[in-house]
Amino acid sequence: MSLDPYRIFDPEPKLRALAYELYEQVQNLPIISPHGHVEPRLLAENPPFPDPTELILIPDHYIYRLLYSQGIPLEKLGIPTLDGTPVETDHRKIWQLFADHYHLFAGTPTGYWLAHEFSAVFGIHEKLNSTNAQSIYDQLSACLAQPEFRPRALFERFNIEVLTTTDSPSDDLIYHQQIRASGWPGRVIPCFRPDALFEIAKPTWRQELAALEQAVGNSISTFGDFITALEKRRAYFKTLGAVSTDQGIETAYTQKLSQNEIDSIFQHALKGNVTPQEAQLFIAHMLMEMARMSIEDGLVMQIHVGVLRDHNRQVYSRFGANKGCDIPIPTEFTRNLYELLNAYGNDPRLTLVVFTADETNYARELAPLAGHYPAMRLGAAWWFHDSFQGMLRFREMMTETASIYNTVGFTDDTRAFCSIPARHDLARRVDATFLARLVGRHLIDMEDASRMIRALAYDLPQKVYKLN
Amino acid sequence: MSLDPYRIFDPEPKLRALAYELYEQVQNLPIISPHGHVEPRLLAENPPFPDPTELILIPDHYIYRLLYSQGIPLEKLGIPTLDGTPVETDHRKIWQLFADHYHLFAGTPTGYWLAHEFSAVFGIHEKLNSTNAQSIYDQLSACLAQPEFRPRALFERFNIEVLTTTDSPSDDLIYHQQIRASGWPGRVIPCFRPDALFEIAKPTWRQELAALEQAVGNSISTFGDFITALEKRRAYFKTLGAVSTDQGIETAYTQKLSQNEIDSIFQHALKGNVTPQEAQLFIAHMLMEMARMSIEDGLVMQIHVGVLRDHNRQVYSRFGANKGCDIPIPTEFTRNLYELLNAYGNDPRLTLVVFTADETNYARELAPLAGHYPAMRLGAAWWFHDSFQGMLRFREMMTETASIYNTVGFTDDTRAFCSIPARHDLARRVDATFLARLVGRHLIDMEDASRMIRALAYDLPQKVYKLN
Amino acid sequence: MSLDPYRIFDPEPKLRALAYELYEQVQNLPIISPHGHVEPRLLAENPPFPDPTELILIPDHYIYRLLYSQGIPLEKLGIPTLDGTPVETDHRKIWQLFADHYHLFAGTPTGYWLAHEFSAVFGIHEKLNSTNAQSIYDQLSACLAQPEFRPRALFERFNIEVLTTTDSPSDDLIYHQQIRASGWPGRVIPCFRPDALFEIAKPTWRQELAALEQAVGNSISTFGDFITALEKRRAYFKTLGAVSTDQGIETAYTQKLSQNEIDSIFQHALKGNVTPQEAQLFIAHMLMEMARMSIEDGLVMQIHVGVLRDHNRQVYSRFGANKGCDIPIPTEFTRNLYELLNAYGNDPRLTLVVFTADETNYARELAPLAGHYPAMRLGAAWWFHDSFQGMLRFREMMTETASIYNTVGFTDDTRAFCSIPARHDLARRVDATFLARLVGRHLIDMEDASRMIRALAYDLPQKVYKLN
Repeated sequence: MSLDPYRIFDPEPKLRALAYELYEQVQNLPIISPHGHVEPRLLAENPPFPDPTELILIPDHYIYRLLYSQGIPLEKLGIPTLDGTPVETDHRKIWQLFADHYHLFAGTPTGYWLAHEFSAVFGIHEKLNSTNAQSIYDQLSACLAQPEFRPRALFERFNIEVLTTTDSPSDDLIYHQQIRASGWPGRVIPCFRPDALFEIAKPTWRQELAALEQAVGNSISTFGDFITALEKRRAYFKTLGAVSTDQGIETAYTQKLSQNEIDSIFQHALKGNVTPQEAQLFIAHMLMEMARMSIEDGLVMQIHVGVLRDHNRQVYSRFGANKGCDIPIPTEFTRNLYELLNAYGNDPRLTLVVFTADETNYARELAPLAGHYPAMRLGAAWWFHDSFQGMLRFREMMTETASIYNTVGFTDDTRAFCSIPARHDLARRVDATFLARLVGRHLIDMEDASRMIRALAYDLPQKVYKLN
Repeated sequence: MSLDPYRIFDPEPKLRALAYELYEQVQNLPIISPHGHVEPRLLAENPPFPDPTELILIPDHYIYRLLYSQGIPLEKLGIPTLDGTPVETDHRKIWQLFADHYHLFAGTPTGYWLAHEFSAVFGIHEKLNSTNAQSIYDQLSACLAQPEFRPRALFERFNIEVLTTTDSPSDDLIYHQQIRASGWPGRVIPCFRPDALFEIAKPTWRQELAALEQAVGNSISTFGDFITALEKRRAYFKTLGAVSTDQGIETAYTQKLSQNEIDSIFQHALKGNVTPQEAQLFIAHMLMEMARMSIEDGLVMQIHVGVLRDHNRQVYSRFGANKGCDIPIPTEFTRNLYELLNAYGNDPRLTLVVFTADETNYARELAPLAGHYPAMRLGAAWWFHDSFQGMLRFREMMTETASIYNTVGFTDDTRAFCSIPARHDLARRVDATFLARLVGRHLIDMEDASRMIRALAYDLPQKVYKLN
Repeated sequence: MSLDPYRIFDPEPKLRALAYELYEQVQNLPIISPHGHVEPRLLAENPPFPDPTELILIPDHYIYRLLYSQGIPLEKLGIPTLDGTPVETDHRKIWQLFADHYHLFAGTPTGYWLAHEFSAVFGIHEKLNSTNAQSIYDQLSACLAQPEFRPRALFERFNIEVLTTTDSPSDDLIYHQQIRASGWPGRVIPCFRPDALFEIAKPTWRQELAALEQAVGNSISTFGDFITALEKRRAYFKTLGAVSTDQGIETAYTQKLSQNEIDSIFQHALKGNVTPQEAQLFIAHMLMEMARMSIEDGLVMQIHVGVLRDHNRQVYSRFGANKGCDIPIPTEFTRNLYELLNAYGNDPRLTLVVFTADETNYARELAPLAGHYPAMRLGAAWWFHDSFQGMLRFREMMTETASIYNTVGFTDDTRAFCSIPARHDLARRVDATFLARLVGRHLIDMEDASRMIRALAYDLPQKVYKLN
C-alpha cells in the first residue's frame, strides 16, 4: 500500500502519461496556503505533537462526524465536552475504535488524505485495521517523539512557502509576533476574520465588542467608532503580514444602508434589541464596508457562503462549535452580490474571492460573474467539495465560462497540519487529470496546459493574494 | 443482440477488468427489494401473466409517457380510462404501435431494461421493430403460457430473497396472509404507506379515514384516536413481516405542533374545512409522529420527497393517478428536516431513509446530513434517476461526504415485476463501474472495493432494513 | 496546430474509433441554424467583412468580457460607447492586446472556436500570441479582401441550409425581402421576437408600441388591438419564411388573466403607470397568448429563460446591452409552466422549445416535462453551456428521461458568423462522443447510434422547426 505514483490520474494510458507529465512540472513547487485554520501557536512554540489520537482524530471533525453518523458516541472518541460530561481518556482505546471502523472512510477524501499522511509523512504503508491498530499507534508515537516531527521541521519538510491562519480582529497576534521575533524564516501570516463582530444578534456579541474595544484601546459607542476600530485592526494585521480578510456568511446578500439606518441598527445592537432582519441587514451592509476598506488598504476580501452552522443543537450544546454538524444550504449570488459588484466590482483595486458550498452556483452564477467583473475571483472547491470528485466538478463547471485565470488555485482550509501536503498534492493531481483530458481531446495543447498547471499550483495564489 | 457480459462497464480495458472482477463477486447474490410496487396478489394467486401488452406496456408509465410525449394518444395504447372513453383493445395492434416507436427508447433506462428483460427472461435477443413485432409477440405469448413464467416461478428464478410491496394502513393484507398460509417460502412483506390518510384537504380523505376506522374496528373522532389507530395498524403490519413505512411528500418540512394546534387541525379536517396551510402543517407534524412511532416500534421510516403528482390535469381526470405526469420540484432538506433531526436524529433506534428527485440536494444537503446524524441514511437514486447516469451521479455526489456506509444499496421501486432482475443487475454493474474507477485511481484498493460492492448489493439493505 | 481529426472524442482507442465512425456519418450534412443573431444585412448586401478586429473581437462579447474580467478596459478594446467616451480606434493595437492575452481563452469554448475558425476558415494554423499577432492580422486581412470571404460565399462554403435571424415584430424585414428578391438561393429566415413589446414597465415601451403601430398601419389603444397587431405581424413574418417565435424571459411563470385584468394592465401601460407585479403578470399572460397564436398559425414557440440582463449598470450605461454582463439566475419550470402546459401542452399543434441557463432544471424538471407533454421540446444547451462540458452535461442529464427525440438538435445562437461551422462541428463531435460511450457500454448499438447522430445533427431541427 505504498502510494502509487500515478494515483488519481485517469487510468487510460495516454491520459495517464499526459497527466503525469503535467503533474511532474508542479509536484515540487512550494506550497502556498492562503487560507486555513492551523494554530499559529504550533509554529511559535514548536512543541512536539501529542499522541496519534490527539494529533489525528480529536481535532478533525471530518473524521469523527463519520464515526458519529454510524452510531459511535462522540464521548467514546474523546471529544472534549463543554458541560462536563466525562469522555474517554484512553487514547489507545479511542485509536482502536477508529481502526475498527476505518473501512467507513473508503472512498472519502479523509480516507485518501490519511493514507497519504500515514505513508508520506510517517512512513506507514499498511492500511489501518483492527489488528494492526496498536502497532501503528506505536510507530506514529515513535515518530512524534523525534525532533524531525516538530511543527517547524514539518513546515520545512512540507515545503510550505506561506501559511495563513485565521484570526479574530481583536486578537493580539502574539504567536505571529513570536514567530517573527524568533528568527525562524517560516512565513506564517494572519487573516482578519470578523464574523463574531458582525453577528450582532448573538448573545456573545457584546463580549466580542468589548474585546475589540480593548484591542484598539478606546470605547466604541457609534457605528463610526466601530468602523474606525476595524480599520485600525486591519492596519495592525497588515503589520504582521496579513494579505486578506475572510467572512463566513449564510447568504451573500449585500446592501448599502443609509447612515441613519446603519447607525440606528448599531445602537439597537448596543442595547441588545436587534431584530433578526436588522441582524441580516447589518451583515449585508458590512459586506459593503469590507469591500470599501479592501479597496483602501489592499487586503484581499474572501467570503465563504452558505453553511448553516451547528445544525445539531444537542451536539452543539454539549461539544460546542465546529463538531461536524454544519450543513450547507442553497445560496444565490447574481442578485445577492448585485449591489456590491455594482458599487465596487469594476474597481481593479478590489479582489473579492468567493467560496460556496452549493455547487449549483458554479456554472449558473459564479463563473459568469467572475468571467465578467474585474474584481471577482473564484475560490477553490470548498469543504465537502475539497475532494477528487468535488475538485473535478469545480474545474468542469467553472473553467469554460470563467477561465482558470479567474480562479485562485488551491486552498486547503484545514486545521489538520499534517494533512496539508496530502491535500495540495491531491489538488495538483486533480488539476493534472483535468488538464490532461483537455489535451487528450485537443481542446488545448501542452504549452497551454503547462502554463495552466503552474498557474493553478503556484502562480495564481501568489498573484491573487499579492504574496510576492 | 445478446447481452454483452461487459455491458455498462467503462470500455477502458483495465477499468473494465476491475469492474468485471467486482461485479462477479455479487452477480449471483440474492435480490433484496426493500421498496417497490408489485401487486401481492400476483404472488398470492400465482396466475399466469396475461399477454405481452398487458404484461409489459399497459402497467408501465415509464413506457407510455414517452410514447405520449411523441404524440401518441394514451387511448391508442389501451390505457384504461376512468370516464368511459373507449380505448384500443386489440393488444397486437398496440404492440405494433409500440414496436413502430421502439427507437424512442434508445439511451433511456427503459430501453436498457427492456433489452435485458427480453433477452434474459424471455430468451429474445432481437431488437423489437416494426417488422418483427408480431413474431416477438408470439414468442412472448408462448413463454407466458408456460408454468415457468408464472409469478412464483419467476420470483424463484430471479433469486429474490425479499420483496416488499406498498400498502395502505387500512389494507387487510389478505394477499400477504394468503402467501404465508400457502406454505410457499417466498418472502413477500408489506410496507406501511399512509399518504392518503395524511392528505387531509383532499376530497377523498373522509373515505380513507372511514376505511381506517373499519380496519381498527372503532370510530376516530380525535387526533389521539387517529394516532392510536395508526399505531395499531403498524403493529398489524409487523405481524405480516413489515419492516418499514413510506411517505411520498412534496416537501420535507417538519414541525411539531402543540397538542392544541394539532387537535384543532384534525377537527377542521373532520369538518372538511382545512386551509391549505393547515394541510401542510398536518403533514409536517405527522412526520414527527411517524419518527416517534418508528423509534418505538422499530419500523424503518422512508420518505420520498419532491414530486408534484398529476401535473397534467387532463390526463389525470381521464386516466387517473400514476400516468407518467408526475414532475419533480426543487426541494430542501437542511432547514426542512431541522426539527425532526434535532428531536430524533441522534437516536440510533431511528432509521430515516431519505429519497429525493432533486439531485441538487445530493452533495449540498443530504450527504452532509447523512454523514453526521446517526439516524439518517440515503435512499437510492430515485425514479428518473434510477438509470446508468443517474446512479453514477448519485455515487459521485454522495460517496465522498456520506461514505457508502450511510446509503442503503439499491431500491427498484417498480411495478414491473419482470424488470426486477434487469434493474438490480444494472445497479450492481454501475456500482462495479464506480468502484473500479476508484481502484483504478488508487483511491481505494480491491479489498475495500470487494467489501463495498457486497455492502451495496446485499449487506447494506439487509442491515438497514433489519431483514435478517 | 492544425485541427486534429479526432479532437473532442474520448482518447480511449475504442471509444475514439466509435465516435469517429459516428461523426463521419454527419460531418458533411448541411447546417441548419434555427436560432441565431447574424445580421440579415450581411447576406442581403454581401459586403466584404471589415478588418479582423471588427470581424472577430468587437462584436463578440464572449471574447471581450473575459478580457474585461482580467482588468482590460472595454475602451481599450474599441467597444463603441453610447455616451461619447472615446475608445481605441487603432485596430492593430487592439488586436495586439487581444493576442497578448490569448492564453486566457485556453479551456474555454471561445478558445476552441477561434482555433477552429482560424484554421478551417482562414487557413491559419498557428496559435495567436504576442509575437505573431501582426502577421496573423495581415493574413486575416488578406483573406477578407478576397471575394471568397464575402458573406454569401462563406454561407455557401459553410454548407448552411437554413439560417434564422432574430427580429423585432415591427421590423420591415427589408433585408429578408432583398435576399429573396436577389435571386440568391440562400435560405435566410426571420424569427419573431417580441420581448421589447412585452416589457411594459420599461421607459422605451411606448416607443416600441409606436413602431408596432406604424408597422401595422393603425393605432393600438386596447389590448385587443395589441393582440391583433401581433397576429398580423406574425402573418407577415410567415410570408418571409418565418417558422418560429422567440422570447427571452427572466422566469417561465405563466398565467391566464381575465379579460378585465389584462385590459386594465394594458391601459396602465399606456398611461405609463404599471406596477412591477403588473409587468410580470403581463408577460405571464403573453406567454399564454403566444402559445395560443402558435397553435393557430403554426409558428414554433421558443422561450429562453433565466438570464438577468445588464447586471453591470456601469457597463450598461456606457456601452449598452449585450456587453457580456448578463448573468443567469435560478429558474423553475414545473410550477411556472403549469398553466400553459395544462392549457396547451396536450395539443400536438403546439411546439414549445424551452431553453434554460440553469442546468439544475435539466434532469429535475425539463426532461420529465418534455418526456410527457406532446407539445414540449428541449432546446439545446444554451449560452454559457454551449461548450464541450456544457453540451455533454446536457446530454447526460436530459437523454435518459426525455429521450433525444424530445430535443431539437443544436442551436448556435451566435452573432459571430464565421464561428458557425466551428460551433456545429463541436456539437456534432460532442454528440458522437456521447453516443460512442453509450455504444461502448452496450446501452445502445450502432444502428441506434447512427439514427441518433443523424437526428441530432439534421433530422430533429428540420422536423421540429418544420423546415422541409
